[in-house]
Amino acid sequence: MAPSSLKARFEQSITPDALKSYLAEFISTFFYVFAVVGSSMASRKLTPNAAETDPSSLVVVAVANVLALSSAVYIAATASGGHVNPAVTFGMAIGGHISVPTALFYWISQMFASVMACLLLRVVTVSQNVPVYAIAEEMTGFGASLLEGVLTFGLVYTVYAAGDPRRGQLGAVGPLAIGFTAGACVLATGPFSGGSMNPACAFGSAVIAGKFRNQAVYWVGPLVGAAVAGVLYDNVVFPTQAPDSLRGISENVGV
Amino acid sequence: MAPSSLKARFEQSITPDALKSYLAEFISTFFYVFAVVGSSMASRKLTPNAAETDPSSLVVVAVANVLALSSAVYIAATASGGHVNPAVTFGMAIGGHISVPTALFYWISQMFASVMACLLLRVVTVSQNVPVYAIAEEMTGFGASLLEGVLTFGLVYTVYAAGDPRRGQLGAVGPLAIGFTAGACVLATGPFSGGSMNPACAFGSAVIAGKFRNQAVYWVGPLVGAAVAGVLYDNVVFPTQAPDSLRGISENVGV
Amino acid sequence: MAPSSLKARFEQSITPDALKSYLAEFISTFFYVFAVVGSSMASRKLTPNAAETDPSSLVVVAVANVLALSSAVYIAATASGGHVNPAVTFGMAIGGHISVPTALFYWISQMFASVMACLLLRVVTVSQNVPVYAIAEEMTGFGASLLEGVLTFGLVYTVYAAGDPRRGQLGAVGPLAIGFTAGACVLATGPFSGGSMNPACAFGSAVIAGKFRNQAVYWVGPLVGAAVAGVLYDNVVFPTQAPDSLRGISENVGV
Amino acid sequence: MAPSSLKARFEQSITPDALKSYLAEFISTFFYVFAVVGSSMASRKLTPNAAETDPSSLVVVAVANVLALSSAVYIAATASGGHVNPAVTFGMAIGGHISVPTALFYWISQMFASVMACLLLRVVTVSQNVPVYAIAEEMTGFGASLLEGVLTFGLVYTVYAAGDPRRGQLGAVGPLAIGFTAGACVLATGPFSGGSMNPACAFGSAVIAGKFRNQAVYWVGPLVGAAVAGVLYDNVVFPTQAPDSLRGISENVGV
Repeated sequence: MAPSSLKARFEQSITPDALKSYLAEFISTFFYVFAVVGSSMASRKLTPNAAETDPSSLVVVAVANVLALSSAVYIAATASGGHVNPAVTFGMAIGGHISVPTALFYWISQMFASVMACLLLRVVTVSQNVPVYAIAEEMTGFGASLLEGVLTFGLVYTVYAAGDPRRGQLGAVGPLAIGFTAGACVLATGPFSGGSMNPACAFGSAVIAGKFRNQAVYWVGPLVGAAVAGVLYDNVVFPTQAPDSLRGISENVGV
Repeated sequence: MAPSSLKARFEQSITPDALKSYLAEFISTFFYVFAVVGSSMASRKLTPNAAETDPSSLVVVAVANVLALSSAVYIAATASGGHVNPAVTFGMAIGGHISVPTALFYWISQMFASVMACLLLRVVTVSQNVPVYAIAEEMTGFGASLLEGVLTFGLVYTVYAAGDPRRGQLGAVGPLAIGFTAGACVLATGPFSGGSMNPACAFGSAVIAGKFRNQAVYWVGPLVGAAVAGVLYDNVVFPTQAPDSLRGISENVGV
Repeated sequence: MAPSSLKARFEQSITPDALKSYLAEFISTFFYVFAVVGSSMASRKLTPNAAETDPSSLVVVAVANVLALSSAVYIAATASGGHVNPAVTFGMAIGGHISVPTALFYWISQMFASVMACLLLRVVTVSQNVPVYAIAEEMTGFGASLLEGVLTFGLVYTVYAAGDPRRGQLGAVGPLAIGFTAGACVLATGPFSGGSMNPACAFGSAVIAGKFRNQAVYWVGPLVGAAVAGVLYDNVVFPTQAPDSLRGISENVGV
Repeated sequence: MAPSSLKARFEQSITPDALKSYLAEFISTFFYVFAVVGSSMASRKLTPNAAETDPSSLVVVAVANVLALSSAVYIAATASGGHVNPAVTFGMAIGGHISVPTALFYWISQMFASVMACLLLRVVTVSQNVPVYAIAEEMTGFGASLLEGVLTFGLVYTVYAAGDPRRGQLGAVGPLAIGFTAGACVLATGPFSGGSMNPACAFGSAVIAGKFRNQAVYWVGPLVGAAVAGVLYDNVVFPTQAPDSLRGISENVGV
């Protein structure tokens, strides 16, 4: 890649349309992280004795994922594609649906949004700590990372499917399918690895709580899983014959 | 604005079509408030010892929001746009999608519907009190108002997205996206500020319960959040190039 | 109505297409009643100490309503319109969208399906009693009937909206809107009147349990609410200008 | 069927398109079983005292079914039809929508995926046992099999409806309808027969747990129910007049 080409690509990443897409990512990621971390805090506030775990707290966080991610993807759909997640952006960059400079700006928007959402929760609720993702005592970091990778594979694969124009009228429920996948993953792994699938969410809560333990688990697994999903969807299960510009959801954004 | 113009605008607000839209708002808001306040009463009745809070009561109220708001918006969609919420109406008026006189009639319908729904619940359940929205002990009124403002921003932003004709087939699930946003907000903030987002709902329950404490919290935050959402959506993230009449959902109603 | 006309109408109710629609109603109602009554039995089995009520049992029954009614309406949609409920059929007959003889056959299918579903549950679960709808101790029968009437109004109004061809692409999520309305109603009134809205469901469980107390509550309220909804939707809020044959959902069935 | 014809049919089952459909079935079934079995393990981990059953654990597993099955069907829809279930594949083969050799490869993919998903859960969670489906103490094996058969009838009937091109825009929510049916069934029968409806899921967990008790219950009932649903849908309630190739969802796959 020649420097001039890199410069051109960078310039395409700061057009007015691109700036709008970063703002859209900020708004959607803020809302998503706010709902997911907030629901976890709300659930803990309603369970005063921390020793009494209860499946209904898992329902709270999983349903918050379903609702918030579906909505967050929906409202950003035509502006930025509604990634709401650095791992999704990574998976889209691997598949060539978004340029590397644009992807970096997406990451910055997403991480900044996540930190701001956790900060708001921390300030407004006064006495509550922001929870961080944690892995079950008996599990290894590698196991948790593997789990998060499998979950993120499922999520990014669904994002690819939801944005595939060859699916016709099924596209109408694409944002719901993405939210549903996230919720199913949380229900399956909540008490084991936390079911994050989203490095921005893990990063934001860690920054505000000041605890970076296991942070790598929530980055390595998801990024690898996302990359595998992107490669598998586009090249193996649903190979693209038409040129890239036909992939609808990111066409306004990627290069 | 000349008096004659005001008169003309007012007259456009009492045509048969406009009256139908007020009735549609009444029916939808009645149903929404009935479900939300009723589910809160039902949950309390099933938790006899008030000291034993439980995340499942949060699930009850959040899911009631998802279901009732999706349905309420759905059934009113083609008549009134399905605001079901004075803050949404305010956000729509700020964006110029509904005239001020029409918005006032919407407000009257919504508040009257909310009071009637709470009255019905009070009369029919005989021994139960109608619950009012409350803020957590450790929080300030300003913090709660800020929280409600952020939630309402998300809700009104989603309402704008759901009614945007540029989104093609995604419009089919618009009412669901609105309900999903409301449910996610309740899960995130239920035990902190109550997750009202709806001044009519807060007003109706306060009237029947006779407790107006913190009422300002549920008006100031939501109205400000709604206004910001309207301005941001239409002018920054998804700027409108076409004339106003292209905005579909409210075209039969606004002036 | 001349006798010959009555005979003609009756004959139109026993054509092959009509018989298919009765079978479709049987299958859908069977499945709906099975899920609703079964979920109530399942919830009770998981709460051994009947004194310990819990909001999560309300979630079980409400979510079962959402899921089962959405599916039941979906699978019957193009055959019978997916009423799954004598009150809905009554509301459709009041609005002239289905002939009286056809409506009677619908009722027979629905009640028979409900009894069979409850019988299956009773036989298969061996030791469990089939639960019947009950009203809260402090409430009057009139209050409960009023409540059920309001709920059924909302349900039938949503059914009318979901089957209205003027709503364009919103028709795609019509069955979900119907299920959502039912679920919201159950969350709001479960511990008060039971949230039946469906005389067939109340009848079937009463037959198998042998308890007919308060049965009138679950017939009078719903039928009145359904009739009011049908009249209001078609004549006031969304008046029909085109001839009846344009109402899509029941066009293959009604006379 | 002449040997040469059998050979031809077999060859049609190993084309590149067919291989892609097996991979799609593998991915979807893996994800579905992972979510369902994982959510059951997560729920148990949050309920340390096994004697304290609670309806919220039923909600966890049922909602996981709704979310995971909707998504699994969605992502596989245009590649393999999204069966995710040997009983569904059997029902489709009975109706002639998929050839017998292709169906066998589907079964192999599904069972292998289920075993791998359970193995991953077992390895990663270290100390947890994989749960197997069990029937309530007081019930007979015949009763449980009958129950599972009725559930699977409902599921396969919904799959037929969701893939029926005559339903127009209702097709957009087909995957959701399938997930909703599964969730309703789990809510109704979870504590009685487990609500499996899916022989692959029952098989995979049994292999990893090493407990094959009652395995027949989860095969006989579902396969019979699926066959009845296929025959009834295509020949009685919604008889096909057009040639088979019009049935959309499996047209790329079946012979």
